[in-house]
Amino acid sequence: MLPKPCFPKRPLKVAVLGATGAVGTEIIKILDERSFPIGHLLPLASRKSAGNLQKWKNETIKIEEVNAKSFNGIDLVLASAGGSISKAWKNVILESGALLIDNSSAFRMDQGVPLVVPEVNPNDAFQHQGLIANPNCTTILLSLVLAPLTAEIPINRVIVSTYQSASGAGAMAMEELKQLSKAFLEGREEQSQVLPYSLAFNLFLHNSPLQENNYCEEEMKMANETRKIMGIPNLNFSATCVRVPVLRAHSESINIEFSKPFEVENARQILNSSPGIKLLEEFENNRFPMPTDVTGKDDVMVGRIRQDISHPNAIELWLCGDQIRKGAALNAIQIAELFLPKS
Amino acid sequence: MLPKPCFPKRPLKVAVLGATGAVGTEIIKILDERSFPIGHLLPLASRKSAGNLQKWKNETIKIEEVNAKSFNGIDLVLASAGGSISKAWKNVILESGALLIDNSSAFRMDQGVPLVVPEVNPNDAFQHQGLIANPNCTTILLSLVLAPLTAEIPINRVIVSTYQSASGAGAMAMEELKQLSKAFLEGREEQSQVLPYSLAFNLFLHNSPLQENNYCEEEMKMANETRKIMGIPNLNFSATCVRVPVLRAHSESINIEFSKPFEVENARQILNSSPGIKLLEEFENNRFPMPTDVTGKDDVMVGRIRQDISHPNAIELWLCGDQIRKGAALNAIQIAELFLPKS
Repeated sequence: MLPKPCFPKRPLKVAVLGATGAVGTEIIKILDERSFPIGHLLPLASRKSAGNLQKWKNETIKIEEVNAKSFNGIDLVLASAGGSISKAWKNVILESGALLIDNSSAFRMDQGVPLVVPEVNPNDAFQHQGLIANPNCTTILLSLVLAPLTAEIPINRVIVSTYQSASGAGAMAMEELKQLSKAFLEGREEQSQVLPYSLAFNLFLHNSPLQENNYCEEEMKMANETRKIMGIPNLNFSATCVRVPVLRAHSESINIEFSKPFEVENARQILNSSPGIKLLEEFENNRFPMPTDVTGKDDVMVGRIRQDISHPNAIELWLCGDQIRKGAALNAIQIAELFLPKS
Repeated sequence: MLPKPCFPKRPLKVAVLGATGAVGTEIIKILDERSFPIGHLLPLASRKSAGNLQKWKNETIKIEEVNAKSFNGIDLVLASAGGSISKAWKNVILESGALLIDNSSAFRMDQGVPLVVPEVNPNDAFQHQGLIANPNCTTILLSLVLAPLTAEIPINRVIVSTYQSASGAGAMAMEELKQLSKAFLEGREEQSQVLPYSLAFNLFLHNSPLQENNYCEEEMKMANETRKIMGIPNLNFSATCVRVPVLRAHSESINIEFSKPFEVENARQILNSSPGIKLLEEFENNRFPMPTDVTGKDDVMVGRIRQDISHPNAIELWLCGDQIRKGAALNAIQIAELFLPKS
């Protein structure tokens, strides 16, 4: 069955799978904020959370336990309950005829599954076979910057070091950061339960499983997903991903080597007119993006674009983006919006 | 007057200028820990702190206000009161015949002033003309790693992103981080007074003055001081320095490009036998250095040394080091120890 080019022209039935998580909660909030045309919202979660109440516009609706009949008649499923849940329900969802936009990493690199950042590769979305993958948070933020620049001058190599917030590990990791910080300030030593080590006034290399090449999974996600989204399968890419004691915004220190010199002012103008990006560059005040600037905001903030003094063809820049919004929930909804009928 | 090759063979008279600061306090602690041969310790500070008491071994000694006669008969001055204080007292100190080891950036790049990391360029110290400069904290940590590697294969280019603790901005910045974090956790919004922005669950590009090339002073210190310490004046070097909500240990994400491929196992063995470095690489547990591992420790911890998948001649590694100890106080004392007579 060929995918439908767009949703029907009526209020949609939308299921949010993983409705109680950090991303699921934000998805429901953003669906309302953006007036996504919803006739019926179905928040789904595991048995543990089923029965809890969810605010939706002026109503209070009950969170349901996901089951084989949950997806009957549903137009769109926004899933953010983790890879194993997405894998478990994928076939049921696809057979129901719903479009599945999945925030997990389960299908991102699968052939035939578009991996989409709407500002970068919207057309890929229309090649879907029922399932579209939402990229990793750090990748989404980075690709917003790389795509318009490489359209001007091809990129040879990207080196990035990240400063990733607790939210990337979920709502419980955010809560743990607050709790362990409080304990530390009160002179108590508490052990972490959610993250492997305490993030309180501490940081550590991203704890996703190490691959054979000694890059962790998160770092290889960034490399491979960036290649797929940008359509540059052989892009030279190296990321070092670090978890820092920040609640919900990621930052990235990015070094980009092009095939020839890239005039900084040209890069600045290109980024300034690129969708999803807001420049914050007050050189005179030494004021550039910070996590607190982007918390709860849609745009990725970019600043201190400069010539790399160590390489004639490289420029460096700094970005911050809300991990839960553009890094996850917002991007998923923007993908869905590509399929709304033009009015 | 040619510098004396070493201190006299008797207990020394040592002045600590800036005795009440984060580094000064640590200097006094480490002098005791390492049984530096002190006959008389003179803690000096501004009028504001004069009269305060300082613990020294089993005694309590009074902090004195620095004046023109403070340095009479002093053998060694360890200064960490900031560049303007060092500049103000430099000539008085040198005329007194004391050796001045200065932790500020005031003289580091001056010709005739050795800039020394004892594990890297101890011989430079003996070229002094009364004054030896202690390098920037991030530079000390980095040079410990770069020096033994470049002795094996020449380095072409270094790209580093830092994760710098509040302590680099002094004891008051550390206190502010704790205070603003507490306020945040209690739902109060307080403004920063010491640092330009709140570090509580936040981070920002290092706020030292921007240079014309849009690198900040801290980043150019790293570049220029690394070049001077390693004796490679044209080293391609680019740093992005970031202040993070950690109390007193710096971390660095380091990409090193060599003139030819560097076998990772070879690099690991070299670093493992290099002074001042301790490897922490539990690949099976995904366990690498964290700020909490090095707090209060002398050694710089290095981990996850790996082949850069984006460049055949590059390796990447991660390090953490106590900013106040090896990044400042300890290194200064190690420089002084070079001049102790061999017993």
